[in-house]
Amino acid sequence: MLRQVVAMDFYEVVRTRRSIRSYRPDPIPEDALNRVLEAARIAPSGSNRQPWRFIVVKDVGLKKRLVPACGNQGFIAEAPMVIVACGRAAPIDVSIAFTHLILAARAEGLGTCWIGSFDNEKVKEVLGIPEGFNVVAVTPLGYPAGEGFREPSSRKPLSEIVSLDGFK
Amino acid sequence: MLRQVVAMDFYEVVRTRRSIRSYRPDPIPEDALNRVLEAARIAPSGSNRQPWRFIVVKDVGLKKRLVPACGNQGFIAEAPMVIVACGRAAPIDVSIAFTHLILAARAEGLGTCWIGSFDNEKVKEVLGIPEGFNVVAVTPLGYPAGEGFREPSSRKPLSEIVSLDGFK
Repeated sequence: MLRQVVAMDFYEVVRTRRSIRSYRPDPIPEDALNRVLEAARIAPSGSNRQPWRFIVVKDVGLKKRLVPACGNQGFIAEAPMVIVACGRAAPIDVSIAFTHLILAARAEGLGTCWIGSFDNEKVKEVLGIPEGFNVVAVTPLGYPAGEGFREPSSRKPLSEIVSLDGFK
Repeated sequence: MLRQVVAMDFYEVVRTRRSIRSYRPDPIPEDALNRVLEAARIAPSGSNRQPWRFIVVKDVGLKKRLVPACGNQGFIAEAPMVIVACGRAAPIDVSIAFTHLILAARAEGLGTCWIGSFDNEKVKEVLGIPEGFNVVAVTPLGYPAGEGFREPSSRKPLSEIVSLDGFK
């Protein structure tokens, strides 16, 4: 059997990533999941400390319990998996790895939606995350349902967010 | 004149990115810089607030003043540019955009080194960053000097950083 070769241009990945809020229940092939996690694994971090942990939530009961802990966004439990990233006192490092994961998912044709608004203590309780760790980000992971290409949400022009040789 | 087409596979970008600590002084083509900044511009953020600002530092005197504000890492001033990202109380959002920028630089053959250790107040003073904003990340940007491919630094195996249905 031929191994499927995945290749998507970097800028195509960045340009076509969308926050997906509706998912098909179809399972995620193990090799695709592994590539997505591997992209997070090799991310850079301060002093290469790699202060991250990723919890893959497939259990239906646990997924449902995450919904009220994540602002009652019910679509979270639609996806076949939810990924919860946590870390020790280094949210920026965990964010770098999670950004790799979000983009790699897009390269696999998988949808994500970075959930940054959640109840840290509730998510920790649902997943048994110990003291000393905090939740940094949550995303459902699965194949997008419904419409195909969607226009990107609007962004400020470069002229508003970039300045030369000082804050202007 | 033909417009140069840039294309690098997403996973190749992620796998071959390195922290670069030695730079050639060669200038960065404007279209490459624009693609790198554009990748940051279109990053996702909480409620699409885009709470980021990017300062492109080309001035030699300013670059030199950034060195002591960034842990005396002299290679920062070797690069033709330094990019400083700051934001209002949303370091995770700024980190997402900065991760896009770091990866896009790699797609362009440009080197970066995410500097997370700096004196926030000193960098703010050098660049005139106003109250209410904080520096989130700094990187030199330029073509790598010296050696070509370098082995990646070591990473924990997936089995140490990933668990299923709970923190294990």
